[in-house]
Amino acid sequence: MPESKPESESKTYTAAVVIIGNEVLSGRTRDANLQYLGTELNAIGVRLMEVRVVPDIEEMIIDAVNAVRKSYDYVFTTGGIGPTHDDITSATIAKAFGLDHGRHPDAEALLLDHYDPKDVTDARMKMSETPAGAELLFNPISKAPGFRVENVYVMAGIPRIMQAMFEGFRHTLSGGEPMKSRSVAGFIGEGKLGDELGEIQKRHADVEIGSYPFVRDGKYGTSLVARHTDQTAVDAAIDEMRALIVKHGVEPIEEKL
Amino acid sequence: MPESKPESESKTYTAAVVIIGNEVLSGRTRDANLQYLGTELNAIGVRLMEVRVVPDIEEMIIDAVNAVRKSYDYVFTTGGIGPTHDDITSATIAKAFGLDHGRHPDAEALLLDHYDPKDVTDARMKMSETPAGAELLFNPISKAPGFRVENVYVMAGIPRIMQAMFEGFRHTLSGGEPMKSRSVAGFIGEGKLGDELGEIQKRHADVEIGSYPFVRDGKYGTSLVARHTDQTAVDAAIDEMRALIVKHGVEPIEEKL
Repeated sequence: MPESKPESESKTYTAAVVIIGNEVLSGRTRDANLQYLGTELNAIGVRLMEVRVVPDIEEMIIDAVNAVRKSYDYVFTTGGIGPTHDDITSATIAKAFGLDHGRHPDAEALLLDHYDPKDVTDARMKMSETPAGAELLFNPISKAPGFRVENVYVMAGIPRIMQAMFEGFRHTLSGGEPMKSRSVAGFIGEGKLGDELGEIQKRHADVEIGSYPFVRDGKYGTSLVARHTDQTAVDAAIDEMRALIVKHGVEPIEEKL
Repeated sequence: MPESKPESESKTYTAAVVIIGNEVLSGRTRDANLQYLGTELNAIGVRLMEVRVVPDIEEMIIDAVNAVRKSYDYVFTTGGIGPTHDDITSATIAKAFGLDHGRHPDAEALLLDHYDPKDVTDARMKMSETPAGAELLFNPISKAPGFRVENVYVMAGIPRIMQAMFEGFRHTLSGGEPMKSRSVAGFIGEGKLGDELGEIQKRHADVEIGSYPFVRDGKYGTSLVARHTDQTAVDAAIDEMRALIVKHGVEPIEEKL
């Protein structure tokens, strides 16, 4: 049994991600930020519950952000904070919150310090604009900062910069117990395991049990995954799933996640 | 100028994708279906407007599907139609439409024909269940079909199977004029181009102009993309963007998309 915790630690913290950009919807760019954020949030005990991908259209960004910021503890947006006309995220977030929008003095100072005076353009200085009262999110790579308004964290879309921003503020996020997970696999179709796996799920009702088929070296197999904040609960479910694979005459493969 | 078209061809067809699966949100699996669908829909003149990623939670799937199916011409879901207890998409889509849910006779026949009698399990036969009246979507790989209810196409999550399903019914989808796009790039920061690029966007207001920074061989560059259904409009915007790059003393690179 897990030790009893103060109430604040037993809360489940939740998050949504809003990915902003025509280039993701048109297939031009393959998003890499969702997987990073899902993994990293999980590690600090924040559960990513929902992702929305929307185009560079003001009304759609506002609708998505306003829907999720009321439902989850944290919202992380990626994309649309660069220097060009199609970067409308910052002004749009201001509208979503009903806030004024303009140059943030600290961001202005950062950019004026970073660029040669001859390279200062209106376009670049646009990256110093935030909703009024926003807190800046440090960008160690290209300096132009992200920002936070209430529970909404507005980050760059370029994965390397987004990750650097996230790493800068992740220690400030509150998380609950991180999910523990383990996996056991075998070269057997999931349809052969499904009925008994359903029984295992019933016996371990509060463990999240997933079944994921794969093809490896031309052979079909199934990965069974157990997830719970309590390692003992994960281990107990994994023991039953390993035994199920063995019962079907297949060698179980312990997997790292 | 584009030729005048019958009204049915000038309509803009729109779509949403709903990606269903805890494994995508937890970071375990990197989604590959969004990029495929965005690209393929674009090619047939259907514009992907929105994507939602939701966990294997009935209420969240219902909310997402019911929100988008009323807003767009087509909805494509991926994931959750396998044989195990965590595959709840089919039963959940039935609930979203207020339809009964049970074995589809044609799907039942397909699966009974496909499996050795000794390999027929309740779990596998679960894959013959659809909402009442659904139309099956052929799966040439593992046989268990997807299905369509009204404008909602329910497909597998495994990319190879999802793609095979999509290829089976894509000729039945109605599309408008496909978006044409071209791109021109240069090794110059987008912040140096942004002000003038904004002017080009104003002069070509109905062309969708995007600016995407990149790092290649250690050097910063920018790809400028123009998208419109009319090739002439795309070409005119590209000509101005190429001239802008040249004006800054940088060699323009024509890119394929």
